[in-house]
Amino acid sequence: MNKNRLEAFSDGVLAIIITIMILEIKVPEDNSFESLKPLIPVVLSFVLSFVYVGIYWNNHHQMFQVVKKVSGSILWSNLFLLFWLSLIPFATSWIGSQNFAAVPMCVYGYLLLMCAISYTLLQNKIIKLEDKDSTLYKAVENDKKGKISLACYISAIPLAFVSPWISGLLYIAVALIWVIPDSRIEKQINKN
Amino acid sequence: MNKNRLEAFSDGVLAIIITIMILEIKVPEDNSFESLKPLIPVVLSFVLSFVYVGIYWNNHHQMFQVVKKVSGSILWSNLFLLFWLSLIPFATSWIGSQNFAAVPMCVYGYLLLMCAISYTLLQNKIIKLEDKDSTLYKAVENDKKGKISLACYISAIPLAFVSPWISGLLYIAVALIWVIPDSRIEKQINKN
Amino acid sequence: MNKNRLEAFSDGVLAIIITIMILEIKVPEDNSFESLKPLIPVVLSFVLSFVYVGIYWNNHHQMFQVVKKVSGSILWSNLFLLFWLSLIPFATSWIGSQNFAAVPMCVYGYLLLMCAISYTLLQNKIIKLEDKDSTLYKAVENDKKGKISLACYISAIPLAFVSPWISGLLYIAVALIWVIPDSRIEKQINKN
Amino acid sequence: MNKNRLEAFSDGVLAIIITIMILEIKVPEDNSFESLKPLIPVVLSFVLSFVYVGIYWNNHHQMFQVVKKVSGSILWSNLFLLFWLSLIPFATSWIGSQNFAAVPMCVYGYLLLMCAISYTLLQNKIIKLEDKDSTLYKAVENDKKGKISLACYISAIPLAFVSPWISGLLYIAVALIWVIPDSRIEKQINKN
Repeated sequence: MNKNRLEAFSDGVLAIIITIMILEIKVPEDNSFESLKPLIPVVLSFVLSFVYVGIYWNNHHQMFQVVKKVSGSILWSNLFLLFWLSLIPFATSWIGSQNFAAVPMCVYGYLLLMCAISYTLLQNKIIKLEDKDSTLYKAVENDKKGKISLACYISAIPLAFVSPWISGLLYIAVALIWVIPDSRIEKQINKN
Repeated sequence: MNKNRLEAFSDGVLAIIITIMILEIKVPEDNSFESLKPLIPVVLSFVLSFVYVGIYWNNHHQMFQVVKKVSGSILWSNLFLLFWLSLIPFATSWIGSQNFAAVPMCVYGYLLLMCAISYTLLQNKIIKLEDKDSTLYKAVENDKKGKISLACYISAIPLAFVSPWISGLLYIAVALIWVIPDSRIEKQINKN
Repeated sequence: MNKNRLEAFSDGVLAIIITIMILEIKVPEDNSFESLKPLIPVVLSFVLSFVYVGIYWNNHHQMFQVVKKVSGSILWSNLFLLFWLSLIPFATSWIGSQNFAAVPMCVYGYLLLMCAISYTLLQNKIIKLEDKDSTLYKAVENDKKGKISLACYISAIPLAFVSPWISGLLYIAVALIWVIPDSRIEKQINKN
Repeated sequence: MNKNRLEAFSDGVLAIIITIMILEIKVPEDNSFESLKPLIPVVLSFVLSFVYVGIYWNNHHQMFQVVKKVSGSILWSNLFLLFWLSLIPFATSWIGSQNFAAVPMCVYGYLLLMCAISYTLLQNKIIKLEDKDSTLYKAVENDKKGKISLACYISAIPLAFVSPWISGLLYIAVALIWVIPDSRIEKQINKN
């Protein structure tokens, strides 16, 4: 089974997810600068989610570069990831329109957690199909970044009820450690 | 005629169909967990349809792997399938917003039936163009899964008026037997 | 300049145009069969436009198969075609929601006319770049289908004010003569 | 790292941006020609933005033709460009619905400026990765068009408060000087 269509389909879904979010930025009824003010939280949540979807696209791109074969179970693991990612626009719009209130921030964190878990599942499925000497396996052997992210999400979800701003800072922190694309795979390619 | 653009166009349409459905999940006006409650049927219907579109994409992907040539009539059969699939978001939103009432469930079943029929038509067109020894022909020779699905849809449509839950269970059952991607084609490739 | 990205971009735009139209089919507030009744004109207009966009995709696909090189002016002619096609969802929704009234039918015809003209412009640009012995040139030498279509559109626009049904029938007629994909190019390929 | 998926993803996002704008052209409630009148500014703003996104797609297409390798930092520069481009539909809809009022025109110009800056950043990242003898470097060596555009945007933003029409004319002027695709790259390819 070849991986090209899986990549093309994922690119399509990710491109739509990243662009559909802007439909939630409602055009003001007025033509003053003040009318843009209520949009600030909406735009901020859009920026955060844009970066997250960008991170997933970058890492997905990098991971599939070393993939040689694709199985039925990889197709479904990929769809499982796309499912959770496709809920991001909903949560983004909710946190923005509710001014980063506790419950929406908690739900947003839950979605980010599910995205991270399903990404890890996909990664494991790929490693299982490739042999243990695979470039990918070596690259993600001790997945420090992944573990820190999971820890951040898991603490951010309940902390939203202490202060939603703590959760927000944790989401931003995770985004920042991932913006640098996963150079581990690149390094491992060069080593071989 | 080469099959690449047919695949690319189908991937595009399927990616949009699967993602457009989330636009129907309206963001709550409130920021409590309770405000998510009325969304439960909408999200459940989204999950079911996401799985269905995923199944069609997976099988479409697998089927076109063994396709060597594409004719004008295959292009139109493919568009006929995409037409019925593109109505899925409408029916999904209807069953969700009407809490799985009888008429919407019946219409949803009718659409699934038309998708199944048009998929079979497309398959037959492809087999006709390839010769009888084709991998695809052997793989789908006695299409047990396909026949069970048709039987389920045809019974689910009137049964919605007995109880919409019976129809719902039948739709879930069909989804489950297809989630396992069509290993018949894979097997047939390995045999050759 | 290679033609792959032009094809990929056009496929993307056409896939979105064909799928975005279903967003106009508003989900009924009720759960009866009667609530589907007011949707009938909307669905009919959707079917007609789906077929039209399908025709453009098919012919675009066939035309670019024989294209070897792409110039800056071809890129813009292609965008000019995509511009007019992208207005189809607007007109489709208008004729459907206004029950095929005269003015919307006339505007719909005008858009179809502009699509046809811009398609012909694109075709001519391609022929000019290829040499006169090109497969495409021979295939469309005496463009009978194209001329009949133009004649139909030009008569349908004013005839909408006599009766919108005449225009409707003319649009359906043109669609029917094009549903059969442009076998002229296929024939010409086989001749060479 | 190969550039194919970066191109495919960018094509997807640009195709969605260019098509999503038409969703803002609200279908009239009436069926007269007069009901189209209030749509004129919306359609005009759509045409301008369609041309701008078309220009970015054309130049992006041309630039990546000479790109051989892609790095993580190019992926992010590309996403930064796509971010600003994805805000174009919002500003387009705002200037159209507010009849080209001063503040929206100023915001629109700001977005165009950010698009131009992020495009230049992307270009510089690519040149840095390629060596100094790269085709791209020579092609954009003294980026006259780019400098004129920046000057126009920077003057158009404050001038919107003198008269929004001056800004509008400046945006149209910049579009016109770019509609002709960047023949510098083509020329440079032929020279080598």
